[in-house]
Amino acid sequence: MTYQEVLAAARTCSGPYCKACPVCNGKACGSTMPGPGSKGTGTVAVRNYQAWQEICLNMDTICENGPVDTKFNFFGHEYDLPVFAGPVGAVNLHYGDKYNDLEYNNILVPACAQAGIAAFTGDGTNPEVFTAAAAAIGANGGKGIPTVKPWDRDTLYAKLDAAKASGAKVFAMAIDAAGLPFLKNMTPPAGSKTVEELREIVAMAEKPFIVKGIMTVAGAKKALEAGAKGIVVSNHGGRVLDQCPSTAEVLPAIVDAVGGRMTILVDGGIRTGIDVFKALALGADAVLIGRPFVTMVYGAGAEGVKTYVEKLKAELADTMAMCGAHSLADISRSMLYGF
Amino acid sequence: MTYQEVLAAARTCSGPYCKACPVCNGKACGSTMPGPGSKGTGTVAVRNYQAWQEICLNMDTICENGPVDTKFNFFGHEYDLPVFAGPVGAVNLHYGDKYNDLEYNNILVPACAQAGIAAFTGDGTNPEVFTAAAAAIGANGGKGIPTVKPWDRDTLYAKLDAAKASGAKVFAMAIDAAGLPFLKNMTPPAGSKTVEELREIVAMAEKPFIVKGIMTVAGAKKALEAGAKGIVVSNHGGRVLDQCPSTAEVLPAIVDAVGGRMTILVDGGIRTGIDVFKALALGADAVLIGRPFVTMVYGAGAEGVKTYVEKLKAELADTMAMCGAHSLADISRSMLYGF
Amino acid sequence: MTYQEVLAAARTCSGPYCKACPVCNGKACGSTMPGPGSKGTGTVAVRNYQAWQEICLNMDTICENGPVDTKFNFFGHEYDLPVFAGPVGAVNLHYGDKYNDLEYNNILVPACAQAGIAAFTGDGTNPEVFTAAAAAIGANGGKGIPTVKPWDRDTLYAKLDAAKASGAKVFAMAIDAAGLPFLKNMTPPAGSKTVEELREIVAMAEKPFIVKGIMTVAGAKKALEAGAKGIVVSNHGGRVLDQCPSTAEVLPAIVDAVGGRMTILVDGGIRTGIDVFKALALGADAVLIGRPFVTMVYGAGAEGVKTYVEKLKAELADTMAMCGAHSLADISRSMLYGF
Amino acid sequence: MTYQEVLAAARTCSGPYCKACPVCNGKACGSTMPGPGSKGTGTVAVRNYQAWQEICLNMDTICENGPVDTKFNFFGHEYDLPVFAGPVGAVNLHYGDKYNDLEYNNILVPACAQAGIAAFTGDGTNPEVFTAAAAAIGANGGKGIPTVKPWDRDTLYAKLDAAKASGAKVFAMAIDAAGLPFLKNMTPPAGSKTVEELREIVAMAEKPFIVKGIMTVAGAKKALEAGAKGIVVSNHGGRVLDQCPSTAEVLPAIVDAVGGRMTILVDGGIRTGIDVFKALALGADAVLIGRPFVTMVYGAGAEGVKTYVEKLKAELADTMAMCGAHSLADISRSMLYGF
Repeated sequence: MTYQEVLAAARTCSGPYCKACPVCNGKACGSTMPGPGSKGTGTVAVRNYQAWQEICLNMDTICENGPVDTKFNFFGHEYDLPVFAGPVGAVNLHYGDKYNDLEYNNILVPACAQAGIAAFTGDGTNPEVFTAAAAAIGANGGKGIPTVKPWDRDTLYAKLDAAKASGAKVFAMAIDAAGLPFLKNMTPPAGSKTVEELREIVAMAEKPFIVKGIMTVAGAKKALEAGAKGIVVSNHGGRVLDQCPSTAEVLPAIVDAVGGRMTILVDGGIRTGIDVFKALALGADAVLIGRPFVTMVYGAGAEGVKTYVEKLKAELADTMAMCGAHSLADISRSMLYGF
Repeated sequence: MTYQEVLAAARTCSGPYCKACPVCNGKACGSTMPGPGSKGTGTVAVRNYQAWQEICLNMDTICENGPVDTKFNFFGHEYDLPVFAGPVGAVNLHYGDKYNDLEYNNILVPACAQAGIAAFTGDGTNPEVFTAAAAAIGANGGKGIPTVKPWDRDTLYAKLDAAKASGAKVFAMAIDAAGLPFLKNMTPPAGSKTVEELREIVAMAEKPFIVKGIMTVAGAKKALEAGAKGIVVSNHGGRVLDQCPSTAEVLPAIVDAVGGRMTILVDGGIRTGIDVFKALALGADAVLIGRPFVTMVYGAGAEGVKTYVEKLKAELADTMAMCGAHSLADISRSMLYGF
Repeated sequence: MTYQEVLAAARTCSGPYCKACPVCNGKACGSTMPGPGSKGTGTVAVRNYQAWQEICLNMDTICENGPVDTKFNFFGHEYDLPVFAGPVGAVNLHYGDKYNDLEYNNILVPACAQAGIAAFTGDGTNPEVFTAAAAAIGANGGKGIPTVKPWDRDTLYAKLDAAKASGAKVFAMAIDAAGLPFLKNMTPPAGSKTVEELREIVAMAEKPFIVKGIMTVAGAKKALEAGAKGIVVSNHGGRVLDQCPSTAEVLPAIVDAVGGRMTILVDGGIRTGIDVFKALALGADAVLIGRPFVTMVYGAGAEGVKTYVEKLKAELADTMAMCGAHSLADISRSMLYGF
Repeated sequence: MTYQEVLAAARTCSGPYCKACPVCNGKACGSTMPGPGSKGTGTVAVRNYQAWQEICLNMDTICENGPVDTKFNFFGHEYDLPVFAGPVGAVNLHYGDKYNDLEYNNILVPACAQAGIAAFTGDGTNPEVFTAAAAAIGANGGKGIPTVKPWDRDTLYAKLDAAKASGAKVFAMAIDAAGLPFLKNMTPPAGSKTVEELREIVAMAEKPFIVKGIMTVAGAKKALEAGAKGIVVSNHGGRVLDQCPSTAEVLPAIVDAVGGRMTILVDGGIRTGIDVFKALALGADAVLIGRPFVTMVYGAGAEGVKTYVEKLKAELADTMAMCGAHSLADISRSMLYGF
């Protein structure tokens, strides 16, 4: 199946909200929540997508005509591409009842592993979602990153404890989920964590720990101070706070501040291998892609994931070749116009 | 009733001009005057709204997960929110004959007081409008700010004299009303005031006095020199002069010039609690919101006001939490991207 | 008649090309030539109009509430407004056969004089157009500026000679007419003039001489060097060269270079008294307005001219009052936002 | 025939993809490949076109009214205009089966020579395309530039060897063709060349050699280092890599880096003589125009080419006259607004 064919199939089963658009740019879903939209005016997802489009590439083909290698090492695992599927929760609510979160993760995790990448998996009010995802990751050689929400201390520790034995090698927490409706007004309160609280969580996890939802230099430094091994520069696709800047806008300053001292991932509107190239050229180590993987799974299950990963890889390799990069390490800001 | 339900109800009774749009951004009314439009090309109201949209928020949830306090102290009164209803006049002309100004103020003033905020009330050629509003404010514990137009000296003094006994604690004057059609060519002339004239008015008012309609640093300094305790950075929603800059554009320089020495309020296109947050982050102490309160009163009277104030408060509190502010004093320019 | 009524009347008789649009902004006519359009892609007229819209006003009504005086002195004549009707030629070709140039000028010149302004009159291949316009100007107290095209020396001198006795007090030449189709490939050649040729023409005219069609600092300096007493910063409404900058963009630097040493006029997209104010605030002494006067004459003859001039005057006076200017001399760049 | 008539004729025979639009700006074809579109999102061709539109001209007609000379000397040949037809391949695939590449070149090459310009001719998997084009160039006095693709060494040398005897005086290679689908994954590999490989090719060609597809200062310096006598600043009309900057954006820095030391040509969205003027003002020596020549040949063969070249010449000469340039050498950056 081609990417367009998977999209067409997804349109028949991805529920009332997602249109499985030819280009997933946040325009058709706007502020549709439930659904794949973003919060408030619904413009953050659009801004995320648009920011990547506005970055231009410095084509230069006076260079060696050698093979292009897109391999990526992540805390000891080697992946074919510096791309992860992003964590998504409540898929039945937002994308249609073809799958619930358990079913979704049980397709996504092995499909990613087989396609040469890995998935960040989601978390929900049902505790089984997180632990089952961790188990699926363990069953696939530890290729995947269970991603917990910022619950109160006890809930959080119980979830991480249950998942630690799964074989997952890396954990993550979406700290910006504080802005999701279902986390607000919980008793005991969920949401923001201080550096001290975060340091305790990181220590308790006993694995490399990634903090997702960083949008400022100050936030990145606090994550580093708390002992996180990585961050995801992310505004949660616009779903936790309206009118954030795009992730592409804030990424360079964050790279300048903490790059080299922790792994820097980024998500938000990344759709093609060209976008992946741009993110790496700005200094990210890898990227997360969210909504499109949902469409791929709804449209064609594991085959959809494979189709999309192959498309991303071909686009990334082509872009690298046209800009004179033969490995991920060759990619630099000087390959972007005006940087 | 939800905010959208109040809007829907307003559509049935808010006259031929106001459409009670889902987003009140000045586009549908354009240069419609009479009506809620703005003067000339009708672009100032649009520009006001748009300027807030273009300011982005620095989300950062690595912080204490404590309660958020939106309380605001204004010349001795404590309000739940740093938000005032703006002064509006001739509501029957501009919004439909469901209410006249007297009836409108008699709903608005107590509704605001009950909802935890206060109203700036309007003024008209009928002298009773101003004095009755002042009386309503007095009857609600002095929670409200009678706002006079810049009449000739005698008219102005007579109005203020009549209102002084009302119990209102703060007075204001919309000095930019000089650009309203019905004030032009009056005998004796109404409109602009020199610093000396303003100083005399401020002294005569014997209460903290606020000058509304400041759009320049020079104007703010003159208001300060005249003894005003506060200003409203305002272009009167575009209704007195076409092609002004937006208030969000001019606010920072005015804050830098007179901030800390007088209270700085701002209006123009502020619609949500996110906009309120941005105004405070730029340095305003509080905001005025005009047109939406008219729609709320036309749609559902006091209940409409309550609905809107609760919506504003929830949005402001959510934004504060997502940017790491626990009180209004915590809000700073560093919470805005690029500032 | 109101301005909108004159427009409506013009729509019935202004030929197949001009739509007498509610806002004359160059969009509906685009590259329509013959017609009121501009050359090539037809974007210059749009750009001219748009540039004025983007300049914002510094409203400030803390000032004396005195009368506003819009009077303007131009080479010994006093006019009510710093506004001239611009030179237009071949009206029957471009706007419809209700009038030919002779008839048009015979309405426009006295109508302008009666309305308190003056007209720059056009020139054509029919020599009578220029000389009859000069005669009409003479018959109206010399209030008007005969504007010649840059013909070859002999033709030019014959025209100026014939016109000198008319009583016109000032002459002008549209030197940029070099780009009009009917002037190209003439024998002997018409068009560009060197500084030396221009100096000879200026001397021969024996009256204050204005060079119209200046778009650069270098061009302004050359006009000054040649002895011109004034210039019109103009791109001929986009009709002589596609993709010029707008006149509002180039005006400030030209004012900085030659202001105070010669009279500086400007045209291009000026439609309202607010635009006039902005041009003066940027440093122009007065403005020319072209296309709208044609519409006014086609719609209602002298009454149309009067209606439009009164509208311009009211708008200019209102803007002056709202920005604190009581005379043209008070208008300064500090009354524009960001300048 | 007029230009518009040739376009109309082309619409009847230029295949299913090209619309022969009134303005050839990349919008209607977008990412249509096969067809005249560009790669990926299809925005590069649009950006190329738009960048020229945004550059404004400094009109100045206070200058000598002398004849305008557009003659251009290129490696010993004198042409009427600094314009070349760009290399196009697989015309039957992209524009319709009225012609194949051999037939197309056999019309284009002599038509250009007769019209006073020359063509860069294309290359294809069929080796005859390149050699027959070289022969056609030889038969037309050497007026034309055979342009080879960056094949593997043996294929490339065989092609150049076969063409050297043709009488062509200059050769070119489109090094960015590395991004075309049919060149990828060839065995032996085609595409990028190192400076050393390029130096060997340049030496082997024994004629002035031009490298087409330079978009960076670094690339231009490498071409110079390899001994190329010229470059074409080009992103291949967006057909080899999505989201390149426009050529107009990158041209000035490349001119500043290698200008005077090699001939600098540019292509991408140049459609009118005004665009040609702007390219020269930015520092290019001449330009290539691609898609419109295809439309001209499909619409009217040699007559179409003649019509378009005459249009370009008239526009260029008019622009030069209006900006005060009498020869190509007079054209300078100071004739562009803001440069």
